[in-house]
Amino acid sequence: MGILVVGTVAFDSVKTPEGEARDAIGGSATYFSAAARFYAPVDVIAVVGNDFPLDSLDFLRERQVDISGLEIKEGKTFRWAGEYAANMNDRRTTDTQLNVLSGFRPVLADRHREHDHVFLANLDPDVQHEVLSQSGGPGRPGIVACDTMDFWIDGKRASLLSMLNRVDVLIINDGEARQLVDDYNLVRAAERILDLGPRAVVVKKGEHGATLCTRDIWFAVPSYPVSSVIDPTGAGDTFAGGFMGYLARSGDTGVDGLKRAMVHGSVMASFNVEDFSVRRLASLTENEISDRHDRFLEMITP
Amino acid sequence: MGILVVGTVAFDSVKTPEGEARDAIGGSATYFSAAARFYAPVDVIAVVGNDFPLDSLDFLRERQVDISGLEIKEGKTFRWAGEYAANMNDRRTTDTQLNVLSGFRPVLADRHREHDHVFLANLDPDVQHEVLSQSGGPGRPGIVACDTMDFWIDGKRASLLSMLNRVDVLIINDGEARQLVDDYNLVRAAERILDLGPRAVVVKKGEHGATLCTRDIWFAVPSYPVSSVIDPTGAGDTFAGGFMGYLARSGDTGVDGLKRAMVHGSVMASFNVEDFSVRRLASLTENEISDRHDRFLEMITP
Repeated sequence: MGILVVGTVAFDSVKTPEGEARDAIGGSATYFSAAARFYAPVDVIAVVGNDFPLDSLDFLRERQVDISGLEIKEGKTFRWAGEYAANMNDRRTTDTQLNVLSGFRPVLADRHREHDHVFLANLDPDVQHEVLSQSGGPGRPGIVACDTMDFWIDGKRASLLSMLNRVDVLIINDGEARQLVDDYNLVRAAERILDLGPRAVVVKKGEHGATLCTRDIWFAVPSYPVSSVIDPTGAGDTFAGGFMGYLARSGDTGVDGLKRAMVHGSVMASFNVEDFSVRRLASLTENEISDRHDRFLEMITP
Repeated sequence: MGILVVGTVAFDSVKTPEGEARDAIGGSATYFSAAARFYAPVDVIAVVGNDFPLDSLDFLRERQVDISGLEIKEGKTFRWAGEYAANMNDRRTTDTQLNVLSGFRPVLADRHREHDHVFLANLDPDVQHEVLSQSGGPGRPGIVACDTMDFWIDGKRASLLSMLNRVDVLIINDGEARQLVDDYNLVRAAERILDLGPRAVVVKKGEHGATLCTRDIWFAVPSYPVSSVIDPTGAGDTFAGGFMGYLARSGDTGVDGLKRAMVHGSVMASFNVEDFSVRRLASLTENEISDRHDRFLEMITP
């Protein structure tokens, strides 16, 4: 089963205690696909400007990623710049240039509507709605997951809330989960998010791992111990790529499938932080993934 | 097999976002025993002033805890006061009065020397050395674990380092692990701590769980999801109580035993945070522990 991802393809400029990358390839759809392609065919819907070097996405195309849904628009590509604190967990955005991303109206081709699995990366919830309305024919597709951020929680709350009622899984970071339902306690926050519609919530906690919450279960994974964290940018989308990738490949969307997907998400995210941009994901092999997956299982199984 | 714990019995005054407790029963040896008594007989070595209400420890004496090693000294009991931030994870100490704790020279009775398991709670490392030299007869006992804090890492570094060379397990919080070896990355920090002598390091991360590191394995548990955290004071010592308790009861001090001990430590700590002081631990039943233990295993097993 294939996956449709709608998100960004971007230029990132990142400063971390370990170094710096300028105008590097980034974006939520890029990180997501770079991970998910190891599990299932991926179709990307995104927009770039005509300044974007398409051959930088060759590593995706070589393996299960179709970027024919990538719109190339007159103008500049979306740019993000940020700086990480010494703890590598806190970051501040130093620059955002929406450029061609503003006014992005994704149009799905027939092939895009066929996918059972859809990931709506962090975007204007109005745009997420539009994709969802176009996808999956008359009904909605099998598993829809979405992400969001503080900007939309504050600025487009109504649209976001009705969006949450249309998705199966919300994948969100801890700070935003707290903000969304105004509760510091993550256990209560996750339960309140379930009241908003999704049948599962995945709370990403950076170096502290991630938790999965449904009406019936609570499941937590730590992060894989990485002794050399270089750049955490994109770790959340990489997690989502491993998570959705596993669900699509296994076809198992029950509770046990979701738990296993959490492990795959964590493993993929752990690779991503080992280098700037998508460098580590681009060089990754299937053997490395399965080795680390097995080691990680040992590390978390009592 | 029994456990010897050397630590503090204290009056705590605590303010959290959920309320306040004044002059409540606290101290590392108190929390430790309140948890460990569910697993194995515990002998307490500590000192209190003659202002301390001994009957407040009746709940310990009723179940496997021997406090005949509690020295009662003319003067006032050790007092600690602190205040927690809204996130319940950061705290600041607002008052410390050592009182009878200053100049504490523990003297072990013959019965104390018999224990195979020793927990040296956070105390002056010189005092920890002294206890260790008295315990276990000519050799050192089977499993010795210790805790420490920023104050000793800075102030008594040499004594602390030679102490680490005498223990099997260091149980320490994340901030202090980083401080001890001056490395922000916890994976590297744990490995460097192993170089200092202990064969295992347990890094406690509050609401983010705990990790165990040996030369051969890395094992992580999240914290049990508690929807109503009232007071985190003593959670680390309660963790140590469940951890050492399980080791003493099972007699299994191999890697699998250590992993299982991590789970027990987390379960016990999760109860402790549900109320001020030792209230929750005092009312706890064996059934509640085994229920939560089983639920927790489900939550962390992929």
